[in-house]
Amino acid sequence: MPLFQAIGIGRAQGLQLLIMIGSLLLWWSAVPEGLTEPAWKLFVVFITTIALVISGTMAIFTAAIIGVSAAMLTGTLTAEQAFLGFSQDFILLIIVAFLIARGVVNSGLGKRIAYLIISRFGYSSLGLSYSIVAADMLIAPAFPSNTARSGVLFPIVNALASDSGSNPDDGTRRRIGAYLMFCSMAGLSISSALWLTAMAANPAGVAMAQDMGINITFGSWFFAASVPCLVAFLVVPRVLYVVFPPGLQQTPEAPAAARESLRAMGPVSYQEWVVGATFIVMVLLWVFSKSLGINNTAVAFSGLAVLMLSGVFTIDDLHEEGRALDTLVWFAILYAMSSNLNAFGFMAWLGGYLADWVGGFDWGLVFALLVVSYVVIHYFFVSQTAQLLALFSVFLGVGLNAGVPGELMALMLLFATNFMSVIAPQGSSANVIYLASGYIEASEVYRYGGIVTAVNSLIFLTVGTAWILLVT
Amino acid sequence: MPLFQAIGIGRAQGLQLLIMIGSLLLWWSAVPEGLTEPAWKLFVVFITTIALVISGTMAIFTAAIIGVSAAMLTGTLTAEQAFLGFSQDFILLIIVAFLIARGVVNSGLGKRIAYLIISRFGYSSLGLSYSIVAADMLIAPAFPSNTARSGVLFPIVNALASDSGSNPDDGTRRRIGAYLMFCSMAGLSISSALWLTAMAANPAGVAMAQDMGINITFGSWFFAASVPCLVAFLVVPRVLYVVFPPGLQQTPEAPAAARESLRAMGPVSYQEWVVGATFIVMVLLWVFSKSLGINNTAVAFSGLAVLMLSGVFTIDDLHEEGRALDTLVWFAILYAMSSNLNAFGFMAWLGGYLADWVGGFDWGLVFALLVVSYVVIHYFFVSQTAQLLALFSVFLGVGLNAGVPGELMALMLLFATNFMSVIAPQGSSANVIYLASGYIEASEVYRYGGIVTAVNSLIFLTVGTAWILLVT
Repeated sequence: MPLFQAIGIGRAQGLQLLIMIGSLLLWWSAVPEGLTEPAWKLFVVFITTIALVISGTMAIFTAAIIGVSAAMLTGTLTAEQAFLGFSQDFILLIIVAFLIARGVVNSGLGKRIAYLIISRFGYSSLGLSYSIVAADMLIAPAFPSNTARSGVLFPIVNALASDSGSNPDDGTRRRIGAYLMFCSMAGLSISSALWLTAMAANPAGVAMAQDMGINITFGSWFFAASVPCLVAFLVVPRVLYVVFPPGLQQTPEAPAAARESLRAMGPVSYQEWVVGATFIVMVLLWVFSKSLGINNTAVAFSGLAVLMLSGVFTIDDLHEEGRALDTLVWFAILYAMSSNLNAFGFMAWLGGYLADWVGGFDWGLVFALLVVSYVVIHYFFVSQTAQLLALFSVFLGVGLNAGVPGELMALMLLFATNFMSVIAPQGSSANVIYLASGYIEASEVYRYGGIVTAVNSLIFLTVGTAWILLVT
Repeated sequence: MPLFQAIGIGRAQGLQLLIMIGSLLLWWSAVPEGLTEPAWKLFVVFITTIALVISGTMAIFTAAIIGVSAAMLTGTLTAEQAFLGFSQDFILLIIVAFLIARGVVNSGLGKRIAYLIISRFGYSSLGLSYSIVAADMLIAPAFPSNTARSGVLFPIVNALASDSGSNPDDGTRRRIGAYLMFCSMAGLSISSALWLTAMAANPAGVAMAQDMGINITFGSWFFAASVPCLVAFLVVPRVLYVVFPPGLQQTPEAPAAARESLRAMGPVSYQEWVVGATFIVMVLLWVFSKSLGINNTAVAFSGLAVLMLSGVFTIDDLHEEGRALDTLVWFAILYAMSSNLNAFGFMAWLGGYLADWVGGFDWGLVFALLVVSYVVIHYFFVSQTAQLLALFSVFLGVGLNAGVPGELMALMLLFATNFMSVIAPQGSSANVIYLASGYIEASEVYRYGGIVTAVNSLIFLTVGTAWILLVT
């Protein structure tokens, strides 16, 4: 921009400077009524961090460590508050799943599965993306953790990308890898909305709705979700195809080449058997973790241990995986900021503010405003579960008071908890593994994830709402 | 071993099998009286993990993830208990200090300081090692955190090693790097014992002694520590020189070559200025962190942010640092096991057992037994501070009851808290950064760190005890 040139700094430094000035003005401005000073200051730190990432001028890691330093050095957060995210088991699960994915690739099994998929659906990028999302939607009801499910899908998408000649570090990431990763990440926002048992927080929301007299079952959830999810499934990969297009579009010769490569790979190797068996056991344990009373992250650590003992993933491999550390640090820091923002009362204040605002409107308008607000507020939440726990009951109560049909309001907020997951890089722990791959940049998630979220919202607020009103 | 060959497995697998069999026998044996079942089971998991590392057949990372999986899947630890180490600020401090060290190396400043040291003291490996430990002992009183001090020394030692043609990954680590790293790590065990303010837990121990009527000041501590620390300073680098010798011993031409390299480097670059200034500010903030009320880890994160914003340490550099993730995971896991072992009452049980045992002996014998036991028990503690808090008062009380002079008993336990720090890789958070470098293996710390600890104990129990009895 000319202004920046006039004072002799580049565009990136100029944007960063503007953000810092805005941040300082907010920091020194009066604390809004009803908020404590720590809540307000933490909010300023948090949006500054996010603004630095959205501006596209700073890595999310750098923005996060600046944010946490600022919060700690100004006394806004104690060490214990600032670092609580690092010991969250679901965050460690992402990191371990990422390392296991590397083992799947190392063994050659990822390549083999990728070739099998390409040989059937590989005529176009769009065909591949649909096959990935469809597979996700079919396995979803058996995976109560969308984080664990991302750990299953990611290695396959990763192999699909690299076997199509698209890699994160050599300038070819946009060829097809970035598109497929984004589709799979966005696909999780749909597959998690489709089934009551496809995301850890869904049953919690159903229980909270039950407390307010609204009864939702596995069947009624699926029936209500089926039509909007099907529409979103058909639309989202095409939207991404337009706004975030892959360089490689038609690949008519790919299936034949994949079949040839499969023949060249020969029979399944010892390492592939080890990884395959480990993976199947892990998946079974993840699926039944709740009834067996075992922890998902412990399962992942055990799986990683097996891969290390059998030499599929070595200590030397681990020493190359600095990206996993990058991911752990930024995600744990943003998670802790969001948790504390909630603990400091910021979220409750925001919810109350909103309830006052929509108080006098017609129920249709109240419904739309509540859903849109619920989605937009997700910029501040680094966990779908946390937002559900903090705001679902408040929003549902406001909606019921305004005369919105209970089942519609409850289902739509529950669906929104899932379909808004790609609004920001930290919007879901399932996103994080895709970002760690290096195929997608954080600022791209803000841009194209924002578009996907808008499309999802539109589909659910129109087709979805009409369908739910018809069938309930 | 012939037995293993007879059943067709290698030495490593055989040792691992033996350890697992021993572990299962302990697991299924009766819980010792006075211990709860979780305390006993966690103890079995912990010593199995440590045995796998000592055997030299498994990386400490692999052993740690096997241990934590076993503890969680058997229900011995909850996720919260198992992962509490990940959010400890002093553990994160090590990780960030390690990354900053990489920035010091990248900028060329590490190389410059290394050449300056070599040009003065570089005639022999022994000369270099003495210069490193002497520098540590001189700066120690100003550093209340030995972890932060290791973050200052490490980048210099790292540059010294690599500029002497010794690197972790190309088979040259034992040339001189491993020896220098070990000397600096062992040097911290001496420098921390020399000054009341050289380690975070020292003042806590002094306060606990005060509660039992024993008065220790900054001056009386230093006076009592001076003679044994001086002897240890003279002896330890020579002992390591014999048991863990560097390949490169005499380097008469090194100082002249270093002077030549310094000339070739030319004037101090922009990046070196940035790193130098950042480092000086960080050191000042670390030194005054207590009086300023700021957190050491926040200081480190800020320093890393400055290095990243100025391009000295980039996101791509971070993505190479998988070793930092390795370190974070194993250390956090072992720390959590040890913390929980303490919380489950295992340490108190062990202390009580010991008190009963030494009850009837002469005070000289009681004194020696208490100090040796205190040192050996450090195998189970993944923090010097934790051991001091758990056992210092118990051991001091037993000694006083048996007639050991109070000041002798208190000072010796306080010194031991420091001089035993290299008994195991996890014995001090200050060790961890040296291990992360890749120059030293975990099983080597058990072996040669064990020897250093025995030498330190002998010096303090003979010369040290005589000196303290003379001057108090």
